[in-house]
Amino acid sequence: MALGEEVSNKQIILKNYVTGFPKETDMEMVSSSIKVKVPEGSKAVLVKNLYLSCDPYMRLKMTKPETPTYFTEYPLGSVITGYGVSKVLDSEHPNFKEGDLVWGTTRWEEFSLITMTKMLRKITYTDVPLSYYIGILGMPGISAYVGFFEICSPKKGERVYVSAASGAVGQLVGQFAKSIGCCVVGSAGSKEKVDLLKSKFGFDEAFNYKEEHDLDAALKRYFPEGIDIYFENVGGAMLDAVLLNMRDHGRISVCGLISQYNKDKPEGVHNLFCLVSKRIEMKGFLVFDHWHLYPQFLEATIKRIKEGKMVYVEDIVEGLENAPSALIGLFTGKNVGKQVVVVAHE
Amino acid sequence: MALGEEVSNKQIILKNYVTGFPKETDMEMVSSSIKVKVPEGSKAVLVKNLYLSCDPYMRLKMTKPETPTYFTEYPLGSVITGYGVSKVLDSEHPNFKEGDLVWGTTRWEEFSLITMTKMLRKITYTDVPLSYYIGILGMPGISAYVGFFEICSPKKGERVYVSAASGAVGQLVGQFAKSIGCCVVGSAGSKEKVDLLKSKFGFDEAFNYKEEHDLDAALKRYFPEGIDIYFENVGGAMLDAVLLNMRDHGRISVCGLISQYNKDKPEGVHNLFCLVSKRIEMKGFLVFDHWHLYPQFLEATIKRIKEGKMVYVEDIVEGLENAPSALIGLFTGKNVGKQVVVVAHE
Repeated sequence: MALGEEVSNKQIILKNYVTGFPKETDMEMVSSSIKVKVPEGSKAVLVKNLYLSCDPYMRLKMTKPETPTYFTEYPLGSVITGYGVSKVLDSEHPNFKEGDLVWGTTRWEEFSLITMTKMLRKITYTDVPLSYYIGILGMPGISAYVGFFEICSPKKGERVYVSAASGAVGQLVGQFAKSIGCCVVGSAGSKEKVDLLKSKFGFDEAFNYKEEHDLDAALKRYFPEGIDIYFENVGGAMLDAVLLNMRDHGRISVCGLISQYNKDKPEGVHNLFCLVSKRIEMKGFLVFDHWHLYPQFLEATIKRIKEGKMVYVEDIVEGLENAPSALIGLFTGKNVGKQVVVVAHE
Repeated sequence: MALGEEVSNKQIILKNYVTGFPKETDMEMVSSSIKVKVPEGSKAVLVKNLYLSCDPYMRLKMTKPETPTYFTEYPLGSVITGYGVSKVLDSEHPNFKEGDLVWGTTRWEEFSLITMTKMLRKITYTDVPLSYYIGILGMPGISAYVGFFEICSPKKGERVYVSAASGAVGQLVGQFAKSIGCCVVGSAGSKEKVDLLKSKFGFDEAFNYKEEHDLDAALKRYFPEGIDIYFENVGGAMLDAVLLNMRDHGRISVCGLISQYNKDKPEGVHNLFCLVSKRIEMKGFLVFDHWHLYPQFLEATIKRIKEGKMVYVEDIVEGLENAPSALIGLFTGKNVGKQVVVVAHE
């Protein structure tokens, strides 16, 4: 397409605020048009979106909250925003030029005019799959890195438990933990995922939480001496069972609570007294506080990928029209690995 | 009495394991006898108990737990153990001699033969009320000190909230917080206690939580800009309301959860997602990990007491026979300040 041309632009908008479980009908694909040209003097960037990311936090932005939270809701009728990998078609911003590959906050549409350019990063290493920049080399990657190394202060030999362990973040936490000599057990929701944890990501043990009617008993089986570090992705009943199985001076890094995002009222967690009796530290984090670590994280992780010391499994869906169902699938555990939507191949 | 004499020894024993709210009939006063002489070569100490401490954790030791916890249960029929201030009548231990005043773990009886002498400390400063050694200068004191300064990393100007604020620990947390220039609000369960918080302990504000049907609204009233530090003594619904009102990067020091100790199943806490969205650190602690700080704590606190910069309110009950009702009173909030039982005046 030529610069200045008016092109059609398919978009996914939020149609209804979501209550309970999200439905495909809560989103809608609409067709718009966009001029392939950045308004002069605007410092904006016009991109063609290649890969879009499905992340659990996006569900939180689909609820109309009674009080404002960190996760500001999507305005009703607006195009959904999220992480993506994109190609610059035109730029009025000095840091970006036509042809650059970038990743960061974009929108669920074919072409985006991005004015919030501080949320964009130029991709310099292009000898890895570009979709990695919304996974292992993007927000999930640095979440795993910060949440494990910075929040948990892990030591060699410690016993680490990861829930949602085959997901975008969990698979990386397990590999980081193994890289420093921890003993790692993960849980996931299918035999296929459990097999992946052991065969592909090198977890010492793994189990299917859906087959365990007693999570406390399951954890006691895999951690007869207790858990030093819990990387929390799910919340609810799992957290309650974990608290009973933590060791003294254990650490819990709270990355997310995906089991709770579709509930009107989150489940209660009952065993918090364990925080006292076992002197546990439980700490939530958001990657946004830790972007200064990104350069060191990127260098280290790229190196490990190239050396074959880290792997990443993605679940790739083709077509923007399939993005809503892919996002919803996160909450039923349909995805195996990081959920990626391909909007266009370069 | 003469050394070697056989004397009668009233004792309070645990008669039944407690379920739900403790009752006076769960304990019983019995009469025994004891020889006022330490067996030779035993390294034990024989003491006359002067002051006994009523502390919430003791309730946890009255439950027969299904699984062992840090708080090992009292054996049924045994004399209740707890903190006390005592006078040494005889000693075979090189660190203690007749006439010494000591504080530490003793038993709910008139005279105790103490073999676990590592839990005893000699009292060197006797120009303060001796009962202070089970309060401001004892376990509650160092709990407040460690739980506030070590766990919360407080900074001048931060907004601090203390629940059970007129209790043995809470009243000290408030004063510590004021001493470094924090803004402190406390809650308690009666008008008398609320008045004490403001008039005696220097809290900036205080409220009666029993008069607030909406704890979230109450906290928003006292903390329109949110809470930086929460010193947690109660748990349950209060913790849920606090989580909604914490500021980003807030810290919660979990000292105890007294509202939960008489429940078969603790209440659920629902708002843990705030740990993520606000990047909150929540950490439990036990003083037992921090005794190395006791000397510096004691020096600093004695100095502040003598300068009139710290005060301490005790609720003193006379007579060992009244110890069970005094202990039970902690859970109805009957006590105003630190609950002390006088067994004998020196």
